[in-house]
Amino acid sequence: MTDTDARAAGFESAEHQARLAELYRDFEAAGMTPLWRTREGLMPFHPEPKAVPHVWHWADLLPLAARSAELVPVGRGGERRAISLGNPGLPGDPYTTPTLWAAIQYLAPGEDAPEHRHSQSAFRFVLQGEGVWTVVDGDPVAMRRGDLLLTPGWAFHGHQNVSDTPMAWLDGLDIPLVAETDQGFFEFGPGQVRTKSTPERSYSERLWGQPGLTPVALAGTRPASPLMAYRWAHTDAALAAQLELEDDGIPGVTEPGHAAVRYTNPTSGADALTTMRTEFHRLRAGAGTRATRTSASSVWQVFDGTGSVLLDNSKRSVQRGDVIAVPAWTQFSWQAAGQLDVFTFSDAPVFEKLSLLRTEMAG
Amino acid sequence: MTDTDARAAGFESAEHQARLAELYRDFEAAGMTPLWRTREGLMPFHPEPKAVPHVWHWADLLPLAARSAELVPVGRGGERRAISLGNPGLPGDPYTTPTLWAAIQYLAPGEDAPEHRHSQSAFRFVLQGEGVWTVVDGDPVAMRRGDLLLTPGWAFHGHQNVSDTPMAWLDGLDIPLVAETDQGFFEFGPGQVRTKSTPERSYSERLWGQPGLTPVALAGTRPASPLMAYRWAHTDAALAAQLELEDDGIPGVTEPGHAAVRYTNPTSGADALTTMRTEFHRLRAGAGTRATRTSASSVWQVFDGTGSVLLDNSKRSVQRGDVIAVPAWTQFSWQAAGQLDVFTFSDAPVFEKLSLLRTEMAG
Amino acid sequence: MTDTDARAAGFESAEHQARLAELYRDFEAAGMTPLWRTREGLMPFHPEPKAVPHVWHWADLLPLAARSAELVPVGRGGERRAISLGNPGLPGDPYTTPTLWAAIQYLAPGEDAPEHRHSQSAFRFVLQGEGVWTVVDGDPVAMRRGDLLLTPGWAFHGHQNVSDTPMAWLDGLDIPLVAETDQGFFEFGPGQVRTKSTPERSYSERLWGQPGLTPVALAGTRPASPLMAYRWAHTDAALAAQLELEDDGIPGVTEPGHAAVRYTNPTSGADALTTMRTEFHRLRAGAGTRATRTSASSVWQVFDGTGSVLLDNSKRSVQRGDVIAVPAWTQFSWQAAGQLDVFTFSDAPVFEKLSLLRTEMAG
Amino acid sequence: MTDTDARAAGFESAEHQARLAELYRDFEAAGMTPLWRTREGLMPFHPEPKAVPHVWHWADLLPLAARSAELVPVGRGGERRAISLGNPGLPGDPYTTPTLWAAIQYLAPGEDAPEHRHSQSAFRFVLQGEGVWTVVDGDPVAMRRGDLLLTPGWAFHGHQNVSDTPMAWLDGLDIPLVAETDQGFFEFGPGQVRTKSTPERSYSERLWGQPGLTPVALAGTRPASPLMAYRWAHTDAALAAQLELEDDGIPGVTEPGHAAVRYTNPTSGADALTTMRTEFHRLRAGAGTRATRTSASSVWQVFDGTGSVLLDNSKRSVQRGDVIAVPAWTQFSWQAAGQLDVFTFSDAPVFEKLSLLRTEMAG
Repeated sequence: MTDTDARAAGFESAEHQARLAELYRDFEAAGMTPLWRTREGLMPFHPEPKAVPHVWHWADLLPLAARSAELVPVGRGGERRAISLGNPGLPGDPYTTPTLWAAIQYLAPGEDAPEHRHSQSAFRFVLQGEGVWTVVDGDPVAMRRGDLLLTPGWAFHGHQNVSDTPMAWLDGLDIPLVAETDQGFFEFGPGQVRTKSTPERSYSERLWGQPGLTPVALAGTRPASPLMAYRWAHTDAALAAQLELEDDGIPGVTEPGHAAVRYTNPTSGADALTTMRTEFHRLRAGAGTRATRTSASSVWQVFDGTGSVLLDNSKRSVQRGDVIAVPAWTQFSWQAAGQLDVFTFSDAPVFEKLSLLRTEMAG
Repeated sequence: MTDTDARAAGFESAEHQARLAELYRDFEAAGMTPLWRTREGLMPFHPEPKAVPHVWHWADLLPLAARSAELVPVGRGGERRAISLGNPGLPGDPYTTPTLWAAIQYLAPGEDAPEHRHSQSAFRFVLQGEGVWTVVDGDPVAMRRGDLLLTPGWAFHGHQNVSDTPMAWLDGLDIPLVAETDQGFFEFGPGQVRTKSTPERSYSERLWGQPGLTPVALAGTRPASPLMAYRWAHTDAALAAQLELEDDGIPGVTEPGHAAVRYTNPTSGADALTTMRTEFHRLRAGAGTRATRTSASSVWQVFDGTGSVLLDNSKRSVQRGDVIAVPAWTQFSWQAAGQLDVFTFSDAPVFEKLSLLRTEMAG
Repeated sequence: MTDTDARAAGFESAEHQARLAELYRDFEAAGMTPLWRTREGLMPFHPEPKAVPHVWHWADLLPLAARSAELVPVGRGGERRAISLGNPGLPGDPYTTPTLWAAIQYLAPGEDAPEHRHSQSAFRFVLQGEGVWTVVDGDPVAMRRGDLLLTPGWAFHGHQNVSDTPMAWLDGLDIPLVAETDQGFFEFGPGQVRTKSTPERSYSERLWGQPGLTPVALAGTRPASPLMAYRWAHTDAALAAQLELEDDGIPGVTEPGHAAVRYTNPTSGADALTTMRTEFHRLRAGAGTRATRTSASSVWQVFDGTGSVLLDNSKRSVQRGDVIAVPAWTQFSWQAAGQLDVFTFSDAPVFEKLSLLRTEMAG
Repeated sequence: MTDTDARAAGFESAEHQARLAELYRDFEAAGMTPLWRTREGLMPFHPEPKAVPHVWHWADLLPLAARSAELVPVGRGGERRAISLGNPGLPGDPYTTPTLWAAIQYLAPGEDAPEHRHSQSAFRFVLQGEGVWTVVDGDPVAMRRGDLLLTPGWAFHGHQNVSDTPMAWLDGLDIPLVAETDQGFFEFGPGQVRTKSTPERSYSERLWGQPGLTPVALAGTRPASPLMAYRWAHTDAALAAQLELEDDGIPGVTEPGHAAVRYTNPTSGADALTTMRTEFHRLRAGAGTRATRTSASSVWQVFDGTGSVLLDNSKRSVQRGDVIAVPAWTQFSWQAAGQLDVFTFSDAPVFEKLSLLRTEMAG
């Protein structure tokens, strides 16, 4: 009970209580809600997410996705064989956090996911396999283990598996943010991806994939990255270099034994996508990260190695492929058993742009 | 039924149906949701808000607020005698739109609303009355008819009515956006506002209130405006000037007979608050606005005059004090009977910063 | 002699000397210059301007300008009866500093300076008098004591004296910067200013002159300010407020007893002009400024009061109307006798944008 | 004679002439210059540079530089064995254009150019040879044919030739801009470069050299690029890709047969250096560029191939190593004989930031 209520309660006469009850009925009839009865829930002292920390095991996700491939075709309308990971704290909504949507997508040999576009930003991160090309605005982009592939908002895209093995990957989108704030637009494209071409490197990589080099004809800032693929070989090399340089005393790592790269938009240096931050982290064997909490929510996937996460004092062991949801203001840290490689995405850019983001290191 | 479902339905054997049902049960157990069964709802072709267009009449709001003053004191815990206008399409949530919270706040003679601060941005817009000073980070700011008063995120603020008449005004905050995305921080300040001083002009106006003049010692961009009060006399003069200049053939009005000013941050020229756009519009007698729809949601309050709004083909007459909620993608226009003055706020800056905002003129 | 030369000198044989002399002749023939013979001059340890600190007295400038009005008409070709103040350290060039051009401009009763436009940015600052309207892109802007009037690059402008008394003012332009870097474009406009209208307030003031209010139809960042006039009444009020607030313990002054405002572009919060910073400073009677030096060069004009400047240890008394040139890296401070009001402009924005600006407080 | 002068000349009496002569003498004594006598020169209709288009032949430059190595040691004071290319239109100043300084620098086997730093931005572009490491803030950066190496303003740097052959390259700096505007600061560092290490890749390349990947610990915008080396293999691949994609109908080239990349700062997408634009252009055999003129001045060096430049209607044949100065507003185009590779730098970012840059295509 708030002080206000307490004081109100001082008006203890039956008449007062009756008038108050009548007032609240009238408020309700008018669709009005007194702040004094809702302030604590609406405006907590710090974020109190309904979403909960959660771990999904790839070993559970993959067989379910595979079963769906036997039973449900991919096609226009449903659009994708993607199955989202719903946060247990958000029942009824297929949301991984209040702003982020993570899913496993599965494409069987020879399958083709039709083209569409939407205001939602999207990416694919590949844990394993290859053989799928995603076609982004006509540009065929190979998908292989360790790669991050972008689909910025309103870019047409479809996927096709040209190999004879199935392929599954992690999809990340800002679907909850866009849905809950009514910003969604969607449009169908061709039912089949518009090119069967399967080049080693996409056009976007050939134009934008040399470090620090911008095609003069395409210069100028864009909201999202024009580079559609961030290849594993580059990510791996960048992480390895940070750790080697740490040995030489050259600054680069995020903290001792902890290398990290952010996928960025070469036209601005900002995050590769407008609403989501994407990063890859590597911990040396035995290293740990300092516990932090941030008002951003995030999703992590173990790419390689084993270790554990501490989520508000609950320790969870994780291994290759496991997906972890970290709601806002959850105290969070990593501990590596062997070398540990982890991909992550979050909604941090949204709240940075709105001057709302807060991050705090544990004492 | 989607094509995908249709094709799936082609698998018509009882065994297939049984296996599919089992798969969906297993998905549910795992907290997983197939996109093909939710795509239409999650990713509509254009925004399909649950929020509905709605009009509240000041004549209804004010007496309810006044009644609450007789029955409920203002104090620590409840913090404010503010009653929010809940959108009928969002039952259970005291939200005016999915991102915006509008309320009537009421302070009786001699009352004092305690100081607090929060990450939510806030403003007050004064339809009528005077006698209250809001104290923002120690700066006493008079509130009078037609004024817009800011409380940027994390600024301490309290209110006190030093007059012998009650005062009511419109409060606008980004409470829903902050609450639903878990960005809220809140802190109590002094139980009484920290100064009883009631100057004509606040410090912020004396420092920042001369057009185009920046104190050298305070130069540099800030996320929100350092000017806490936008006075009616200035707003009125700016609107009048636009219409006079229209008569002289000088560009300035938004469209024929329609003057409009945006409240801006003098350190950047951007919106005065980080998450909300605030504007004041004036229509000449008989003038109308072109119908538009935008992915921003907005709230409007008639300041003076009479007229009507067209909300997706539903015409509503409005008068002084009436508050209108306009969800995203609602086709919307104004028609003035006499000269019509309207205040409005929206979530447009959020979606501009995220490259999501879309606006469309009617044909 | 540099170490390099010293070591070279070690090669003391006559043959070596002869070969070296021949090499230098060959360099000269090829238009080549060895850095080792020019490094000290080209790349000094700190700025070593050729321009020198200098003071011009208004009492000298005004009669000369007045005499020219008797002898030289204003018209197309010469364009303006403006006489620039050439820095004694830059003989041959009519430049006040290496980047700035300051002049006294004089317009006799009934005279009309023809319209033109140029890439150079310009302003007028009015020490005394009134009766002239400058017409900027068709907008008639009154000029009166204490006002700053802008002419952003490439805006057409002319001046007319509609009164029966002559008027003189200070012109400031970036002519040297633009000339020496070959950025100048120039175009004639009408031989007579395009409107004889003499309104109290210009269109630009009516559209942009309310603090923090932006016409919605004109929103968006512009390189230079859309507000063409910054009126003395506002400047005076802003300075007075800073000093009053200082008495109340509210931050605002630049240093004790020293109020200062910068003229800014309301669409961005940046300097009103793209290449020049314009400010007005007020010192309480008896107050002084801390000695500073900066790599920007500046020009100052005493608007009112008396006092002195310290220019690299040389103290100069100044009074109303006196103009002071302060080259880069000159140690500089003010001392007020009575209350002292001073206008200034500098090239600081150029070097801020290029990450070259340095400023240093005296120990 | 201007109209003004013409009208003045109407005052033909001897007395008038005498008084005018006296006025001009008094102006001169006061250091004042009438605009009406200087306007045409100060404010031309379009840029009229004193600098002239000019071509230097590498075949002339290299032997001169080599001769100097026999006669002049490298060391503290002279600092560098760099010989600048002075524009014939700017006699007395060792400037290639009014803002740019281009030089050939030469380091003999075993030589060591001492460390220093300065506010001037610098780069090295390598036409031929290898064996030198430039050490930038302690980071040893190999220099090889086709590479662009940066030395942003105020970074300590020295060079050492660890090979047994001499090496020469093109130095580019903004010395004239900085010198003429008094922005220069300079500081000596160690007399010997601080590390003898000669790694294949510099620290900066290992941290920043993966496309689109930013070390999380180093994120944030910086004025200049943190990547010190742009390797030829990447430049070559980017140019080749643009031409291949042109064959496939994918946009990327600047104009038909003309590929071009800009060296950019990965933290911002802007030019790699704050005051100079650096680019590499490739023309297919037989291709030509459309004639343009711009208010930027530029310097070009032929990296490979042969062709010709048209400089205001004067055609000059150029070949490998030749250096061309292109003053502002010179009409300029390239014509390739065989495939032509050209490096260029200009002052365009300066004037872009100041909203002064103009570029015009020939009709």
